[in-house]
Amino acid sequence: MLNITIPTLLLDRKRCLRNIEKMAEKAKLSGAQLRPHLKTSQSLGVAAWFESFGVSAVTVSSLRMAKYFADGGWSDITVAFPVNILEAPLIETLATNVRLNILVESTESLIYLGEHIHNPVNVFIKIDIGYHRTGVAYQDVTKIEAILDTLASYRFFQFKGFLTHAGHTYKITSAEEAQHIYKNHLAALTQLKNQFAKNYPDLILSYGDTPSCSMLEKLEGVDELRAGNFVFYDLMQYQIGACRLEDIAVAVACPVVALHPERSEIVVYGGGVHFSKDQLLHPNGHVYYGRVVTLDNDTWHIPAQESYMKSLSQEHGIIKASPDLMAKTKVGDILAVLPVHSCMTADLMPYYQTLDGERIDIWDKK
Amino acid sequence: MLNITIPTLLLDRKRCLRNIEKMAEKAKLSGAQLRPHLKTSQSLGVAAWFESFGVSAVTVSSLRMAKYFADGGWSDITVAFPVNILEAPLIETLATNVRLNILVESTESLIYLGEHIHNPVNVFIKIDIGYHRTGVAYQDVTKIEAILDTLASYRFFQFKGFLTHAGHTYKITSAEEAQHIYKNHLAALTQLKNQFAKNYPDLILSYGDTPSCSMLEKLEGVDELRAGNFVFYDLMQYQIGACRLEDIAVAVACPVVALHPERSEIVVYGGGVHFSKDQLLHPNGHVYYGRVVTLDNDTWHIPAQESYMKSLSQEHGIIKASPDLMAKTKVGDILAVLPVHSCMTADLMPYYQTLDGERIDIWDKK
Repeated sequence: MLNITIPTLLLDRKRCLRNIEKMAEKAKLSGAQLRPHLKTSQSLGVAAWFESFGVSAVTVSSLRMAKYFADGGWSDITVAFPVNILEAPLIETLATNVRLNILVESTESLIYLGEHIHNPVNVFIKIDIGYHRTGVAYQDVTKIEAILDTLASYRFFQFKGFLTHAGHTYKITSAEEAQHIYKNHLAALTQLKNQFAKNYPDLILSYGDTPSCSMLEKLEGVDELRAGNFVFYDLMQYQIGACRLEDIAVAVACPVVALHPERSEIVVYGGGVHFSKDQLLHPNGHVYYGRVVTLDNDTWHIPAQESYMKSLSQEHGIIKASPDLMAKTKVGDILAVLPVHSCMTADLMPYYQTLDGERIDIWDKK
Repeated sequence: MLNITIPTLLLDRKRCLRNIEKMAEKAKLSGAQLRPHLKTSQSLGVAAWFESFGVSAVTVSSLRMAKYFADGGWSDITVAFPVNILEAPLIETLATNVRLNILVESTESLIYLGEHIHNPVNVFIKIDIGYHRTGVAYQDVTKIEAILDTLASYRFFQFKGFLTHAGHTYKITSAEEAQHIYKNHLAALTQLKNQFAKNYPDLILSYGDTPSCSMLEKLEGVDELRAGNFVFYDLMQYQIGACRLEDIAVAVACPVVALHPERSEIVVYGGGVHFSKDQLLHPNGHVYYGRVVTLDNDTWHIPAQESYMKSLSQEHGIIKASPDLMAKTKVGDILAVLPVHSCMTADLMPYYQTLDGERIDIWDKK
């Protein structure tokens, strides 16, 4: 039906639209704005699906990605990445054309940009609430005040609020843990908001990772949700408990190139350059890189017997096949494989092939 | 000097040329033809450097990559991947224009191609000598004979020989182990050659992985060497013992976006979408994704104190910095980082930036 001859990223439109709809409803229920992170889909075509659910503001992970979406018509963009001052000319260009929100965590970056930017830029302060990847420690009020003082000394900067990423949630496996993390983060963020609201009454709190936004029934107290991965989900989110296998909306279609029934293995054309090398530890104890689903005409199903991608070379993948799959698979067949990390997989692929026959381009960052 | 503002793949031309020269000499000493695997560099520009060392035949990992090199003028190409029959039309096109060598491991694939191909194609049988990824078990003479019989029944096929990949060498750490693996492989291959030379006097033995080809003083007894990674090497090869740190010829230049001296960490713009997620276990017990080198004007140096990439997000990298590096690094600086797996890193990047100022395009597979 789809005439697939090389590894191809399939997209189930129905699953994807359902994921977007559910998250849009949760944001509404939480009284927060949904500002989805588009680093997952990296696609104007998929981003357009968000518009029909009332989304008008988005998040991206690089200034160049911001330019791609700005050129495509999006006009309110947060670059959720500690600002790269070496791209000041691009910041200047973007600030001329869209409502641009950047992240800072040092006075040095702000001073440099303050000297090089001449158009309005909104600034979030990145707050670290224990994840320790980036950001100012939430207790370090002195540093936050120093950043705000620097910010106030340049007339093109507008303080937008506090932004945090609870990356801890990628290590959890229950809603209780998500709730615990959210409670701690909300307490820290609310304290900051109360402390600085006098001088900045419009400041907002920006939160959002897919596990929290999926596993919590609602997220009251923050102003916007920046989750992104939920648009497709993946095996990592499934293992965390943030989605069901049935919610995963992308799969890599891989041509079968060799069969090894003596060890229940199928060799497919589909490797690290298509899936990325992100891996998971299966509850059964083995590492894996994907899971086989059964392609139907306009969707796919989770087979009763599990078959998984046990290893990935540059272009090959080795599938550990169930007896069922081994028995029915022939060289030249196409197998569909759910990815471990859909953001990284989409980044490697040129387009989405929807099951209803549309090709939707992915940003060509090269 | 180089005006770098985003993650950029640096190439040290001198190191690269030295790596090529050494491998060309080893092939000569071994009495074998060097047929380098170009999946590492994926670049006509870098491939051209091989020509000056007498290389006229190459290896690639997909039919589409074969087309890229065929379009660029290479005329003798082995696709070292179990043939994907769904791309028969592309095989037909390639076979019209170049000397094309494909790999088979089943009669099914051959029969399909035999019915669909009308131009000469050379065929290797992929032999499995214990690595168990792909190939016909070397003891399975019945299957080999069946493939040869099928092959002989189509006039456009020419049997080229036996090809094997000793992927085991990626688990070794000494030349003795490489020697042991080579001895076993050579014994199995030679037995096959002796057995089938009567009917196929021109059959050749194709061998080659970078650890073997680097760690063995010579590889007598095989006819061609297909190693590829050696052109750049990387931290994986260094940890195996296949190269010195000083031999690694590529590094990712990453802008510094944040500093966290309280935990000796530097945040750089440079993540999984630039490096890939391949990781190594450091002898000291931690996982790592890269190692910082000191950029000089026209080369780089290995600093006395080690700093390494401790984690990679989609676009961020977190460097665990030595006291020296931490003390001297500022936001907006560029740090150069040796990659764990240069093939996967090159696959993600648009071009090589040589330290002497040239941009060399990488194949845009999208």
